[in-house]
Amino acid sequence: MLKSELERFVSEDLGEWDDSSAIVPEIEAEAVVVVREDCVISGLSEAKEVFGHFGAIADAAFDEGEFVPAGSEVLYVRGNARGILQAERLALNFMARMSGISTLTRECVLSAATAGDERSVRIASTRKTTPGFRLYEKKAVLLGGGDPHRYNLSGAVLIKDNHLKLLGLEECLRRARRQTSFTKKIEVEVESLEEMLRAAELGADIIMFDNMPPAEICNGVRILQERGLRDDVLLEASGGITLENLGSYAATGVDVISLGALTRDARWIDMSLEMEAGSTEANRG
Amino acid sequence: MLKSELERFVSEDLGEWDDSSAIVPEIEAEAVVVVREDCVISGLSEAKEVFGHFGAIADAAFDEGEFVPAGSEVLYVRGNARGILQAERLALNFMARMSGISTLTRECVLSAATAGDERSVRIASTRKTTPGFRLYEKKAVLLGGGDPHRYNLSGAVLIKDNHLKLLGLEECLRRARRQTSFTKKIEVEVESLEEMLRAAELGADIIMFDNMPPAEICNGVRILQERGLRDDVLLEASGGITLENLGSYAATGVDVISLGALTRDARWIDMSLEMEAGSTEANRG
Amino acid sequence: MLKSELERFVSEDLGEWDDSSAIVPEIEAEAVVVVREDCVISGLSEAKEVFGHFGAIADAAFDEGEFVPAGSEVLYVRGNARGILQAERLALNFMARMSGISTLTRECVLSAATAGDERSVRIASTRKTTPGFRLYEKKAVLLGGGDPHRYNLSGAVLIKDNHLKLLGLEECLRRARRQTSFTKKIEVEVESLEEMLRAAELGADIIMFDNMPPAEICNGVRILQERGLRDDVLLEASGGITLENLGSYAATGVDVISLGALTRDARWIDMSLEMEAGSTEANRG
Amino acid sequence: MLKSELERFVSEDLGEWDDSSAIVPEIEAEAVVVVREDCVISGLSEAKEVFGHFGAIADAAFDEGEFVPAGSEVLYVRGNARGILQAERLALNFMARMSGISTLTRECVLSAATAGDERSVRIASTRKTTPGFRLYEKKAVLLGGGDPHRYNLSGAVLIKDNHLKLLGLEECLRRARRQTSFTKKIEVEVESLEEMLRAAELGADIIMFDNMPPAEICNGVRILQERGLRDDVLLEASGGITLENLGSYAATGVDVISLGALTRDARWIDMSLEMEAGSTEANRG
Amino acid sequence: MLKSELERFVSEDLGEWDDSSAIVPEIEAEAVVVVREDCVISGLSEAKEVFGHFGAIADAAFDEGEFVPAGSEVLYVRGNARGILQAERLALNFMARMSGISTLTRECVLSAATAGDERSVRIASTRKTTPGFRLYEKKAVLLGGGDPHRYNLSGAVLIKDNHLKLLGLEECLRRARRQTSFTKKIEVEVESLEEMLRAAELGADIIMFDNMPPAEICNGVRILQERGLRDDVLLEASGGITLENLGSYAATGVDVISLGALTRDARWIDMSLEMEAGSTEANRG
Amino acid sequence: MLKSELERFVSEDLGEWDDSSAIVPEIEAEAVVVVREDCVISGLSEAKEVFGHFGAIADAAFDEGEFVPAGSEVLYVRGNARGILQAERLALNFMARMSGISTLTRECVLSAATAGDERSVRIASTRKTTPGFRLYEKKAVLLGGGDPHRYNLSGAVLIKDNHLKLLGLEECLRRARRQTSFTKKIEVEVESLEEMLRAAELGADIIMFDNMPPAEICNGVRILQERGLRDDVLLEASGGITLENLGSYAATGVDVISLGALTRDARWIDMSLEMEAGSTEANRG
Repeated sequence: MLKSELERFVSEDLGEWDDSSAIVPEIEAEAVVVVREDCVISGLSEAKEVFGHFGAIADAAFDEGEFVPAGSEVLYVRGNARGILQAERLALNFMARMSGISTLTRECVLSAATAGDERSVRIASTRKTTPGFRLYEKKAVLLGGGDPHRYNLSGAVLIKDNHLKLLGLEECLRRARRQTSFTKKIEVEVESLEEMLRAAELGADIIMFDNMPPAEICNGVRILQERGLRDDVLLEASGGITLENLGSYAATGVDVISLGALTRDARWIDMSLEMEAGSTEANRG
Repeated sequence: MLKSELERFVSEDLGEWDDSSAIVPEIEAEAVVVVREDCVISGLSEAKEVFGHFGAIADAAFDEGEFVPAGSEVLYVRGNARGILQAERLALNFMARMSGISTLTRECVLSAATAGDERSVRIASTRKTTPGFRLYEKKAVLLGGGDPHRYNLSGAVLIKDNHLKLLGLEECLRRARRQTSFTKKIEVEVESLEEMLRAAELGADIIMFDNMPPAEICNGVRILQERGLRDDVLLEASGGITLENLGSYAATGVDVISLGALTRDARWIDMSLEMEAGSTEANRG
Repeated sequence: MLKSELERFVSEDLGEWDDSSAIVPEIEAEAVVVVREDCVISGLSEAKEVFGHFGAIADAAFDEGEFVPAGSEVLYVRGNARGILQAERLALNFMARMSGISTLTRECVLSAATAGDERSVRIASTRKTTPGFRLYEKKAVLLGGGDPHRYNLSGAVLIKDNHLKLLGLEECLRRARRQTSFTKKIEVEVESLEEMLRAAELGADIIMFDNMPPAEICNGVRILQERGLRDDVLLEASGGITLENLGSYAATGVDVISLGALTRDARWIDMSLEMEAGSTEANRG
Repeated sequence: MLKSELERFVSEDLGEWDDSSAIVPEIEAEAVVVVREDCVISGLSEAKEVFGHFGAIADAAFDEGEFVPAGSEVLYVRGNARGILQAERLALNFMARMSGISTLTRECVLSAATAGDERSVRIASTRKTTPGFRLYEKKAVLLGGGDPHRYNLSGAVLIKDNHLKLLGLEECLRRARRQTSFTKKIEVEVESLEEMLRAAELGADIIMFDNMPPAEICNGVRILQERGLRDDVLLEASGGITLENLGSYAATGVDVISLGALTRDARWIDMSLEMEAGSTEANRG
Repeated sequence: MLKSELERFVSEDLGEWDDSSAIVPEIEAEAVVVVREDCVISGLSEAKEVFGHFGAIADAAFDEGEFVPAGSEVLYVRGNARGILQAERLALNFMARMSGISTLTRECVLSAATAGDERSVRIASTRKTTPGFRLYEKKAVLLGGGDPHRYNLSGAVLIKDNHLKLLGLEECLRRARRQTSFTKKIEVEVESLEEMLRAAELGADIIMFDNMPPAEICNGVRILQERGLRDDVLLEASGGITLENLGSYAATGVDVISLGALTRDARWIDMSLEMEAGSTEANRG
Repeated sequence: MLKSELERFVSEDLGEWDDSSAIVPEIEAEAVVVVREDCVISGLSEAKEVFGHFGAIADAAFDEGEFVPAGSEVLYVRGNARGILQAERLALNFMARMSGISTLTRECVLSAATAGDERSVRIASTRKTTPGFRLYEKKAVLLGGGDPHRYNLSGAVLIKDNHLKLLGLEECLRRARRQTSFTKKIEVEVESLEEMLRAAELGADIIMFDNMPPAEICNGVRILQERGLRDDVLLEASGGITLENLGSYAATGVDVISLGALTRDARWIDMSLEMEAGSTEANRG
């Protein structure tokens, strides 16, 4: 995390004049972060940086991306009591939000693996993220076993419905090829099998089935196989997919399933920081 | 929104080299944001600023904080097609996330009003917010009818369990009074009625019942009334409260109910931007 | 101090190309900051950060907020001679300006204590501070024994003459209660005893006597006592108060006296950095 | 003023959540800034930018640097009432602080002109300025008729007592000439007439008499004249000079007198913003 | 250009206190930028933003990327004389540097087109750019007809010699596929035809011939064609290529030729701003 | 280098999500930077900071500004393999660009020394630098033995052709003397010997011969000597000067020769980072 970014996050939570922490004595203390529910843990390295900003040292008991059962102690913190309390909320916000996304991602990955039989299907997120916090949400997806695509508009060329309305597919592809670096893939969003076929024939690198029912997608995959076009293109299903209906999409034979739900619907994982009073008293005594 | 902050949000979504938008012609276009489900709308002014950054003009069809039925057109946008598409995702992220919070807040406010009979109970949020995005989450709470407290650690003195473990209540209050400006209120978090009574007797401005069952809180309120201490203190219930169990807390007679859930559990409202192809053709023709 | 802020302050004083320091050899040196007049010292921690930025180590001989007699050595510095000279002016500017404010604040606190007999009166500053430097000026007030209120417009609701002109008192209070968090106090500025009485009856948390003579304020306090309203409200005197006339305000029975003069009229404390040539020669020898 | 800097100043005064202004209706209003004492006005352009940030328009009734009698209306403001009140304190802080410096500078300039008979003596400030606010303090000196030298360490080479202790004069000058651009002047601070003479003979561009009594400086000037060195060097007196003792220094025949006092001891000029209730009522009616 | 970035560039050239421009009267003036040698012009939009920052309006006489003969007037500027002079150097630095890159890029594109007969070969730049100025150097490449790849390390996965030394090719590809988004292409840098063949067989998206002679590259292309692997991979030649030897690489049959030289060796185009004295006199008269 | 600036440079090269480096194992490694051609080395301290940002330690084998023969190892790096690869390009860009400027500057300095016989002539750069990178380009000039003047518009008063067109010389000098600090030198750009003479008579500190042939400059110097004005003014030749024609300017008797070519035409020095595979294996083993 850039120092300037960390300072911005810290300032948001401290405000200009933090009296609540000012009453805390500057004594050495220990604390532990306990997770209250099963989860895939992430945000540990961010939490360590936050505690470090306040001169405290935090050691993680798990690797990021590991499954952690309810009741586990996940982070041990030592440092100045005042600093620990000033870091507490921000560190927990990182961990609770990111672990929630990692956990939901893992559930989706496992669900897809079950449904997708031998082929492995990638679970990907979208750009439906909290403004200013995308990097951490994408990282949480990755730690959950997902694909962090599409970080931003520069990552690949995505030709969407609104592009098609304005220019048509041929013109979109022509412009993309002329104006875009050869290092970038070109993805086309389709809403019908006719569009799919044209996109494949015109050489799109990736085709995204947008808001299409699993049965139709199945059909599409079959058509591409019949025409010998399947191996030249990556197929992605997107739109309205959740953990609940994911299985039927995984069974269609697409390569990737992307869910805005990974970042939009993830719950926060319940966790809290416990101050170790005993050790503190010892320090004061 | 500060210009420097807006530029930061925009950069996150565009990346360093946005080829996807580069293929879009620089023609005049119109677009509309349509809401797909009932909601309390917010984020409109932020969306307008985002579109404005790209030279487009956006007019809102509703006031922020208004109830909006599914299917409504909430924002009309005119401008350069390329700019509109570059602004699209960021503007929607603001609106969908913020409206989700406003909607859940409104539901809680209404639920509390029903349960709380004649007394009005305030619904408040907490500091459990997405790092870097707190201002907008708090604003969404306010637009939903809630109380945006506690913006940061500087907003008031909050004496929590970890403070009490380190110093004890008397010492905490003594320090808070000595070190803190007279303009700030002092709030004490209690976990038992004994603690509550001591905090009230020692003159705390606000007492927060932390993770206590409604029946016990009810008892607490009654005790304070019997001792003539009720009117000198604001009472807040917090911890584990959700839209579902809110009613029983509202009926206890507290002044404020705070829910981390407002910002943690709010769903995103489903909405999308529709490009008006017709008008575009006219412009091109 | 945020690193980004420290870098900004340092850049202001160095400019883009510091030739004056470039001629200084990169040898180890020692230096001491000597105070030329009696003062309450502050700015020590800021000075230490400034020296630290240039790789020098500074140890304070006094606690911040302590009284220091003329001629005292207050800070011992060791490090690279070039770095010390580059830090010198900025470190001294922090210390001289902040100590001036702390010293004047202490004088006001002592003067008020004498005049205010048994009741203790708080001495507070205002928002009349140097743009961009408020945090340090407020901290200096605190270290001098004063109250750092009002850090900014978000700290509490202050209903001033211009608000009253626009809306009237009832409407101001109604809006403040509806729109403001329950954690904030509401303060009303009054210019007559009629206004004072109405503000107290309407439940203002704090009443500020604005530019009213001590005798009238005395009257006001008595009226509130007679009506049984005195204990429910904090009283503040403000406007045209200086160290010279402070006593008569302290005797009125108000809780707080606020003086723009604390930050506006404070002199800089005379101090300088002495390079220890001896030790340097030793290092060179 | 850079936009990013203006946003920083504004944020300092607003804080994260400005409830005080939120209660003000968004109606059109007019206001005027009235000066309560005679002064040389400055800070007008900064105040205009501050009001402009909040969508208000401010017109100045005087040029910056003009003498303005007590009671004058110096700035007329039109705009949204809420915006005007949010801008008020910051705009006044700029004007009151800067006008104080301009006024003191003008007094020094006039005093020096009287004492210095036919020769004109420049009045200059030093680097004893408030961290982060130097640009505005220097500009105020310029508007008062003073010389804004020494903006920062990069502006010229200044060889001070601590440099001389470390390296000796010859070596300092040798290094300065080798390492410094030919576009920069080299100034030497001297504490005796022997040092003065050596510095002049070695070709210093500027010689500063540091903390030397006027009589000795007079002697120094005479010696330089006798040796034919006077015309090749600029002479500056500095150290312990105030408005009160300035005359005797001006009479010594130096070219420049620099006073830390210009920025350190300047009083704030008393001024306030008056809301025009009448016009507002009209707007509301 | 982000406003914060523009302000940073402007500050670099103005410094803290621009006296040179302060002597220029604030009168209306006109100016024209004249190009002294044949070039492909770019940097026009950046120059317009720079002039705009100082309140001047600049109109371009050519499109960016157009060929412009020596002696052409390329930009007409109207505005305040002082502002124009303050903008002059920065605007010219953008235009001269960027046009130099665009011009060299165009020469390479034309040279490759001649040599590459029917197949079109792309000319690409590298990450050998001036720190902090890459965006503009890449844009200049694009305007010259080149491919702006590789904007940064996030743009695609590039497996280089140092990666191969550490991990070997199979492991590099395995990790890249597991950890990288499906939207990114994977490029492998090879130094022999054996490596090339393995990379192609293992499914690399792009193969870069690193510092290999044209004859060997020719061989490589033929081998891939014989094995039926040519159509599944993009081929790039890189390392030691300049405008002079470009032809022999273009004739090898690769898809892309990348040259650090585009950004490293480009000359600045000679151009200058001419103030129109006549129009100024009119304004003064 | 300010931390915030270093973070900006690093971000430019990494982008938001660096997958290329993510595949590299986090093992200890060693690397060395080898220079491929003779050069005057600079940028070493910047490279060290860049490696330091990624937790690697770099030791320089040469002093900055030293001549280094082709094939030399100039920087030894130890640290995490991933970090070293992330730092590689940025560190090399600093070194290659800066060393190129230092090398060309040194060539010019030596050429001038030969031609200028007993008098030493300074070689100076101009403001024709890459936007945002001037500090490093100027530092490279200094390390090559040149004069880094003119850092920005604030460094000295430069009266150029466009100023003269607008105001005339007398008025320019009058304004410069009135408005500018006494610590700044005043330079006048002249295009004829008449202008030169007037500028000298009017007391300019520096006169710049702008685009004048050596023979005419020679004449000018002679005229000033004849009139006894030579010793009171610094003379600078500028405009169209390159390493090739520098000698004839050096022979004219001017004090300074400034060349935009130093920063505009400098080649990058060829250098590369070699990973030490052996040591790495040892670490892995």
